[in-house]
Amino acid sequence: MLFLVRMDVNIPHDLPAEQAEAIKAREKAYAQQLQREGHWRHLWRVAGEYANYSVFDAASNDELHGLLSQLPLFPFMKIQVTPLAQHPSAIA
Amino acid sequence: MLFLVRMDVNIPHDLPAEQAEAIKAREKAYAQQLQREGHWRHLWRVAGEYANYSVFDAASNDELHGLLSQLPLFPFMKIQVTPLAQHPSAIA
Amino acid sequence: MLFLVRMDVNIPHDLPAEQAEAIKAREKAYAQQLQREGHWRHLWRVAGEYANYSVFDAASNDELHGLLSQLPLFPFMKIQVTPLAQHPSAIA
Amino acid sequence: MLFLVRMDVNIPHDLPAEQAEAIKAREKAYAQQLQREGHWRHLWRVAGEYANYSVFDAASNDELHGLLSQLPLFPFMKIQVTPLAQHPSAIA
Amino acid sequence: MLFLVRMDVNIPHDLPAEQAEAIKAREKAYAQQLQREGHWRHLWRVAGEYANYSVFDAASNDELHGLLSQLPLFPFMKIQVTPLAQHPSAIA
Amino acid sequence: MLFLVRMDVNIPHDLPAEQAEAIKAREKAYAQQLQREGHWRHLWRVAGEYANYSVFDAASNDELHGLLSQLPLFPFMKIQVTPLAQHPSAIA
Amino acid sequence: MLFLVRMDVNIPHDLPAEQAEAIKAREKAYAQQLQREGHWRHLWRVAGEYANYSVFDAASNDELHGLLSQLPLFPFMKIQVTPLAQHPSAIA
Amino acid sequence: MLFLVRMDVNIPHDLPAEQAEAIKAREKAYAQQLQREGHWRHLWRVAGEYANYSVFDAASNDELHGLLSQLPLFPFMKIQVTPLAQHPSAIA
Amino acid sequence: MLFLVRMDVNIPHDLPAEQAEAIKAREKAYAQQLQREGHWRHLWRVAGEYANYSVFDAASNDELHGLLSQLPLFPFMKIQVTPLAQHPSAIA
Amino acid sequence: MLFLVRMDVNIPHDLPAEQAEAIKAREKAYAQQLQREGHWRHLWRVAGEYANYSVFDAASNDELHGLLSQLPLFPFMKIQVTPLAQHPSAIA
Repeated sequence: MLFLVRMDVNIPHDLPAEQAEAIKAREKAYAQQLQREGHWRHLWRVAGEYANYSVFDAASNDELHGLLSQLPLFPFMKIQVTPLAQHPSAIA
Repeated sequence: MLFLVRMDVNIPHDLPAEQAEAIKAREKAYAQQLQREGHWRHLWRVAGEYANYSVFDAASNDELHGLLSQLPLFPFMKIQVTPLAQHPSAIA
Repeated sequence: MLFLVRMDVNIPHDLPAEQAEAIKAREKAYAQQLQREGHWRHLWRVAGEYANYSVFDAASNDELHGLLSQLPLFPFMKIQVTPLAQHPSAIA
Repeated sequence: MLFLVRMDVNIPHDLPAEQAEAIKAREKAYAQQLQREGHWRHLWRVAGEYANYSVFDAASNDELHGLLSQLPLFPFMKIQVTPLAQHPSAIA
Repeated sequence: MLFLVRMDVNIPHDLPAEQAEAIKAREKAYAQQLQREGHWRHLWRVAGEYANYSVFDAASNDELHGLLSQLPLFPFMKIQVTPLAQHPSAIA
Repeated sequence: MLFLVRMDVNIPHDLPAEQAEAIKAREKAYAQQLQREGHWRHLWRVAGEYANYSVFDAASNDELHGLLSQLPLFPFMKIQVTPLAQHPSAIA
Repeated sequence: MLFLVRMDVNIPHDLPAEQAEAIKAREKAYAQQLQREGHWRHLWRVAGEYANYSVFDAASNDELHGLLSQLPLFPFMKIQVTPLAQHPSAIA
Repeated sequence: MLFLVRMDVNIPHDLPAEQAEAIKAREKAYAQQLQREGHWRHLWRVAGEYANYSVFDAASNDELHGLLSQLPLFPFMKIQVTPLAQHPSAIA
Repeated sequence: MLFLVRMDVNIPHDLPAEQAEAIKAREKAYAQQLQREGHWRHLWRVAGEYANYSVFDAASNDELHGLLSQLPLFPFMKIQVTPLAQHPSAIA
Repeated sequence: MLFLVRMDVNIPHDLPAEQAEAIKAREKAYAQQLQREGHWRHLWRVAGEYANYSVFDAASNDELHGLLSQLPLFPFMKIQVTPLAQHPSAIA
């Protein structure tokens, strides 16, 4: 079951740099793990913004929330979820 | 080069039904042709809405506009385009 | 799997009255059928508005979209879907 | 009398962690007490967000405000209340 | 129990004038009846707009919705309801 | 001459607590004085929010601004003013 | 007492042209009368839009509403009123 | 003096096709004349939308409004104007 | 050439008071100088808000930006500029 | 391939002044380098705001994002990108 997810990152400028770097490193590792597991199906940068559009594959809303709320950057992101369905004109 | 596109369809209720059906049939055929050609990479229904999120692949903004403006439903849609870039954490 | 759904109804004033009444009668019958089947778990009127907040139970985004897009009033409604998950403080 | 309530939590990152944890623990205990008392009828997590949609049952606007303003997280939440009424198509 | 209500009137220009006048006459009579009964406690014109801010007194959300949905102009108005509570600094 | 006023209070969490309490105490005293003088005709809490809707009676825009800008909480509030006029259907 | 007023004109395209012209001619005459009387102190076109920003001088909100609601274009305009007060740095 | 101008075109679907075509032909001729005269310095299509971003060069706000309000599509467009100034980092 | 300018002031609460007072004193002196020079034609307080609506007279967008960007409060204000043109119904 | 880019700068007031100045100096140098290279085709100040509208020329969305994300002020700006296409009425 697919969900479009937009994440806008906003790290406070007074967060210590090493702390921010550590969070971002953990975020990257976690993001790549979820991609390898097939949960994070697409991950695109929004051109010009510290933001991404992603497509997640989850068995349920609960699973989706579990995946997203464990993102190391979760406390510093605004996240919007749009549930996606099969389109009648889609050939795939 | 990828673009996220959201299309919201709004067909006026006083458009004759046969005219609306003809437009929708042409839209479907055109959408499937673009998918087969590889330009319309993803096409998802927004759950609960007469709308879709799509990912287009085009060589340029001009090509993208050409593809979208020829949509038979173009006069009856609100379209928003977001240019996408490679994300540093993406593994694909 | 639960979804919060807000529906805002907007029937054009130049739709013939008997046609509007027929649609509303079919809407009511369909809404009650979905409630009896357990898909439409809650249905509340927004006080002062021709709108409702509802909670749907569906096995997937696809099933949810199928239920909503068959609403007789679907062409005359603005619908917004919010996927809901288990809350850690909920006792039920 | 029912009210739909949306709460968006925003705890400042420079609030000491132990203080934040203490507030959240008191919030959870209070939320569960209100659920057991029947005032907090539904509590759902908004998938992907530090937010919830809830349904409260209160005898009056005054009682509702009393319940909400005593939430330990009240100073750190944006709350929106929508009064709900009986829907003519609801079977319950 | 008090509610602040904002009503924005939008009568389509192609509604026959006599029909519009009849609706407005019934609206006025009904508004004055509700004021005499004590349900419509305040009725103010928003300066410069075809709109009003009102304060309603109703025993419940259901009663409020019943009062508002019977307004003859209801199909031509956008209505927003804000539930009001006792303010701790109010002396009345 | 009446004005609807909405005030949303937002006290920064890092303002010392005793300072915040002192401001709120002065706010309360001032609010009650204005009510006794007849300038602050109605004061209602917005249910669920740290906000109020009020009706002020002032001889002019200048007098209104003088009353509002002297509120001890003025630096911490977002205020919106709507000028009100006599409604033709009002019986009072 | 001064008020900033923004008026956005939106004449439906299916209003007969002669009717629209007649309304606009009456609007112009009325606007010039109010200017000569001193009520309509400033009248500026918003560059590029069928809209104006104006400054009105009225003894009360009631008088202001009376002036505005008699505008021949009133049914075809969106009007927003902002009450203005003396600024402490103004030298006039 | 430069102005950024965004124009969103919205031609009603019930405008007769030949009338719409005639307006668009006149629009094109006029747009090209203004470009040749140097007033319409840039004209870009917004990808995916029936809209453009343009840069106009005009000696004054009055001249700009004169140019824009004579656009044959003016009654069917939403226009937004942003005045531009020299940027201190611009090398041209 | 006239421009309507709205300025919303937002001085951070943790800016030292003497620094804030010094900036405001310079702002006042500069505002009065611009008024005397004829650039700042009108200066009105928005009733109830720490904001003003002003009318500036400048020979160009560049001159306008120069005037505004030198405001001592510029770093603490949100400014919106609307270019104004001669209105065909204005008698002045 | 052209993109319209709007950048709104918001430097926190508690960023040390010398640090802010250093960032702005590097921003200016980088902006001028990109202009000389032909990537930053237009750079205009939005009159009255600490913001600019720019036109970028990039071979792809990826190249565009690379250019923008390396802006020294990137962490302190809100950036919006609009992809531009050839307009059928443009003569250049």
